[in-house]
Amino acid sequence: MRHIHIIGIGTGNPEHLTLQAINAMNAVDAIFIPTKGAEKDGLAAVRREICSRYVTNSNTKIIEFAVPKRATAGRTYLESVDEWHAAIAERYSKLIRDLPEAGQGAFLVWGDPSLYDSTIRVLERARQTSALAFEFSVIPGITSIQALAASHRIPINLVGKALEITTGRRLVEEGNRADSTVVMLDGETAFSKIDDPDAEIFWGAYLGTPDEITRAGRLAEVADEIVRIRAEARMRHGWIMDIYLLRKGHDFDDL
Amino acid sequence: MRHIHIIGIGTGNPEHLTLQAINAMNAVDAIFIPTKGAEKDGLAAVRREICSRYVTNSNTKIIEFAVPKRATAGRTYLESVDEWHAAIAERYSKLIRDLPEAGQGAFLVWGDPSLYDSTIRVLERARQTSALAFEFSVIPGITSIQALAASHRIPINLVGKALEITTGRRLVEEGNRADSTVVMLDGETAFSKIDDPDAEIFWGAYLGTPDEITRAGRLAEVADEIVRIRAEARMRHGWIMDIYLLRKGHDFDDL
Repeated sequence: MRHIHIIGIGTGNPEHLTLQAINAMNAVDAIFIPTKGAEKDGLAAVRREICSRYVTNSNTKIIEFAVPKRATAGRTYLESVDEWHAAIAERYSKLIRDLPEAGQGAFLVWGDPSLYDSTIRVLERARQTSALAFEFSVIPGITSIQALAASHRIPINLVGKALEITTGRRLVEEGNRADSTVVMLDGETAFSKIDDPDAEIFWGAYLGTPDEITRAGRLAEVADEIVRIRAEARMRHGWIMDIYLLRKGHDFDDL
Repeated sequence: MRHIHIIGIGTGNPEHLTLQAINAMNAVDAIFIPTKGAEKDGLAAVRREICSRYVTNSNTKIIEFAVPKRATAGRTYLESVDEWHAAIAERYSKLIRDLPEAGQGAFLVWGDPSLYDSTIRVLERARQTSALAFEFSVIPGITSIQALAASHRIPINLVGKALEITTGRRLVEEGNRADSTVVMLDGETAFSKIDDPDAEIFWGAYLGTPDEITRAGRLAEVADEIVRIRAEARMRHGWIMDIYLLRKGHDFDDL
């Protein structure tokens, strides 16, 4: 049976790669790299660099493919994602069908395959909707949450307290509820809509890459600056990936 | 000035090590390994194996040290942790003071240094309370959350939804609130006290090691079995490290 490895590659620093990831990349017949559509050019370049740096097995082919675009007009967010996943599942099925029988392939995933990434659920869908039999396994990678905490040199949770991981959309809807809240997938600077005088923000963009930018401080004092820096960086690079932690209170303050 | 690297080493699989971690281990004068006290023997063995496998620089010394024990009698949880951190900070200061001037040292941390680990905050305390000047940096590692999701081959969040990371203590106090809840540091099988007919559990112990055990299913149906397996494994090994995800609902079920 064909076997697919879903490999977490970290957030853009090639040294985030684990030995498990490198060994898997060198065990497969093909590594599939998305190069058009959803993928930004800068991101495809990092994946190519990772392959050229670590793939030493001359039998491993690098296969580039175009990702279907997500249509949003006249659809709710979930409808749009559901339809998009179906289209990607079809694309993945074709890539897997083209592998040798009992062959192995790999998808390289930003961060970790389990967190706000759909490669696992799209491959499950490909198994269910196509007549194709294959197995898959998952290799964990460094997430942008860990890269954010490492760059700011902070623990992500307060002692003995909980942590919420959420999206920009939900932060605006639900407010800044938890002691520590990590916000991912925020295209609309949701933090700037939060009125919470006690909150601190720890923000980072392009984490792990040479373009990394970080800022931290009281939300009320640095929100405007982050909005400005973010817009400038996005303009300069043509894209942005950023993440932040909102925190209320301090360790041991309820001692 | 002396420099300390706080290095995440993953959850017990030596292949979880990143290249960044291995390069740092070979750049330092000393790697500090806790071998007694809080540290379980099995865990110290994994750290020693990681050093013997990856440290190729003959100038890097491995320095074992005893961790102070945490006293709990007559103290609240936070008081006990606060006092314990003070004692560890003193221990760390001594290790760092013994480094050569402008020398480098490293602490190896299970999982990732930012998540339910206190090495960062204890080093901050050591800087504040001792007359010792040093810098530190953080190298991210694979957390047990990512190892859990990889072993179960599942995304840890539902599409577009939030994720809560909490402790066993808080799960019992606050109930199973979120769509997806990861529970860490649960010594008392808090999941078995949750009455939630819709919840699924994805459980794992000794993740990433040859002793790894996983179970998944409807909480009401598998909770008793997990309690039993957990007790047996803990007895057999003399210690246990486990983690689980509680999940309600499915992707796209509010489409």
